[in-house]
Amino acid sequence: MRTLEWDSSGPGLRLIDQTRLPGEEAWLTLTRLDEVVEAIRTLRVRGAPALEAAGAYGVAVAARELRGARDFRRKLEEAAGELRTVRPTAVNLSRGVDRALEAALRGVSPRESFDLALGEAHRVADEDVRRNLAMGGHGAALLRDGDTVMTYCNAGRLATVDYGTALGVLRAAASRGKRLRVVACETRPLNQGARLTSWELSRDEFDVTLIPDNAAAHLIRKGGVDRIVVGADRITRDAVFNKIGTYMVSLAARAHHVPFYVAAPVSTFDLEHRERDITIEERSPDELRWLGGRRNAPDEVRVYNPAFDATPLSHVSALITERGVLRPPYSRSLRKIQAGSQGRRE
Amino acid sequence: MRTLEWDSSGPGLRLIDQTRLPGEEAWLTLTRLDEVVEAIRTLRVRGAPALEAAGAYGVAVAARELRGARDFRRKLEEAAGELRTVRPTAVNLSRGVDRALEAALRGVSPRESFDLALGEAHRVADEDVRRNLAMGGHGAALLRDGDTVMTYCNAGRLATVDYGTALGVLRAAASRGKRLRVVACETRPLNQGARLTSWELSRDEFDVTLIPDNAAAHLIRKGGVDRIVVGADRITRDAVFNKIGTYMVSLAARAHHVPFYVAAPVSTFDLEHRERDITIEERSPDELRWLGGRRNAPDEVRVYNPAFDATPLSHVSALITERGVLRPPYSRSLRKIQAGSQGRRE
Repeated sequence: MRTLEWDSSGPGLRLIDQTRLPGEEAWLTLTRLDEVVEAIRTLRVRGAPALEAAGAYGVAVAARELRGARDFRRKLEEAAGELRTVRPTAVNLSRGVDRALEAALRGVSPRESFDLALGEAHRVADEDVRRNLAMGGHGAALLRDGDTVMTYCNAGRLATVDYGTALGVLRAAASRGKRLRVVACETRPLNQGARLTSWELSRDEFDVTLIPDNAAAHLIRKGGVDRIVVGADRITRDAVFNKIGTYMVSLAARAHHVPFYVAAPVSTFDLEHRERDITIEERSPDELRWLGGRRNAPDEVRVYNPAFDATPLSHVSALITERGVLRPPYSRSLRKIQAGSQGRRE
Repeated sequence: MRTLEWDSSGPGLRLIDQTRLPGEEAWLTLTRLDEVVEAIRTLRVRGAPALEAAGAYGVAVAARELRGARDFRRKLEEAAGELRTVRPTAVNLSRGVDRALEAALRGVSPRESFDLALGEAHRVADEDVRRNLAMGGHGAALLRDGDTVMTYCNAGRLATVDYGTALGVLRAAASRGKRLRVVACETRPLNQGARLTSWELSRDEFDVTLIPDNAAAHLIRKGGVDRIVVGADRITRDAVFNKIGTYMVSLAARAHHVPFYVAAPVSTFDLEHRERDITIEERSPDELRWLGGRRNAPDEVRVYNPAFDATPLSHVSALITERGVLRPPYSRSLRKIQAGSQGRRE
């Protein structure tokens, strides 16, 4: 089941509204740029690889919407710029936007531009699914029959076009006959672990246990976790940027000698940059001040609500990519990957 | 302002309903044992020292309710047994119950038993306030002017009869002219840090910033925290039992060389036991499955929701007590305290 695809009857980008899970499985068709921007901003669609496809399809949506406009090319470039900056830390979003825009700008008419953007968006989406299957295949070998595997946030089908990155590794291991137990961390304040991961995994009949984030270190210390697999939003030369809380889990893994794996496509790598170059976006204080319509903290209380944190690569036991499993020292294995990605275009 | 006291017009135990903060400041007067039990079970009153006083006043409530009963003494002992087991990990609750029961059983009539129980409960409450002021005085010296101090859960006025343990240390430092910034961790799933600590501190005009629990390690790594002060529910010979998540914070403190202080009265010490002897209570899965009336996870998902965790004493830079500040090696300093507590009765 793809969580995001082109709906030609809309026509527009059809996706599952992740803000309404797990209470309700609602699908939306977005036919205007502002709808796509709103869906990305409010996390109706989230997860690095899903954002790559959403960004690409977003350009197609914009090309269609602008087809009668004067200055089509300039306006399409502006639309792409708007899409790119909705979630600035997510490098994949920009990448998807750029790919579709580049394709669109090769068109000699708005109509052709739209077709080219849509074609490129389909390629982005298909590549994602293929990549996740490959990543799962490589990563499955790292999990043992009977393991309890902790995961964080949602790096599953709902974070990608299908199958998932971290959860794709679990799916691949399970499909090879390994019996796993999964621990999902709630992931405050938007609760992607509770709302999305536990929903997605229990639909696939995994044995899944939900914990509050603050119990992760305790459970790891008690020996209740054999492996940890998380996704990534951006991997610089020295750090993995992922959902806030990932660093906390990596610290406990390191203290208690539990392997900590990051599953992410090569497109997540941003080896031009270091941790210090990246600005971590802060989200609205209201996400903490309110709780499902009930007051959680007084308005006069200041809130620090970062979307991501950085986990030093030294905490990562292995990086699982669609091209294979990278091991430390990453300075070497990352250079290899980088060389590979310049050598060929997927 | 006492958060819990005897209401002679009730007559009964009057307390602030902590489950309704910060939206509403509601006071209850509990005149029956089952009301006291319910209030403790549902965390209308919580926090080790507050539970000590609530347990003692609870015996007075029971003595009054049972005053016409046959078998008054046996029934009062049963009532005390019921009170003691509502929150099994909280050693202070049992202690408060035992003190009031012991006093009550010296009475020659139900009326005298009630008077004796109530008198002892008043002593428990008054001692708590005196202890917290003393603890604050000792602990204030550990905080520097300009420090940003992280705290966890609520070890404040709302966790005690008044002033607080960890937050008492902050109050004492502030009253000595030290300017502090405070970081309060939300403390899932009951959000005592958001609902209680941030409310209590902003009422006292502290500069307080609320963060999700999973951001604590990140913020500490980024150098945003100078000191950490938390409370404790029970301190064994080798570990501090406190709200789930305390261990996570201690781990980050240790990794980044931030002093980690525990403020707790000597009555919290349980030096007869080690960590392995203590059972950590688990709370209802619904605390994670639901979020202010909105579904957070499907019902079929298993939940692990421990109330406490254990932080090894080796992670604790100092223990702040009403008798002074204890430093490692605790095997020695704790023995001293223990000898002191056998030598004199406060």
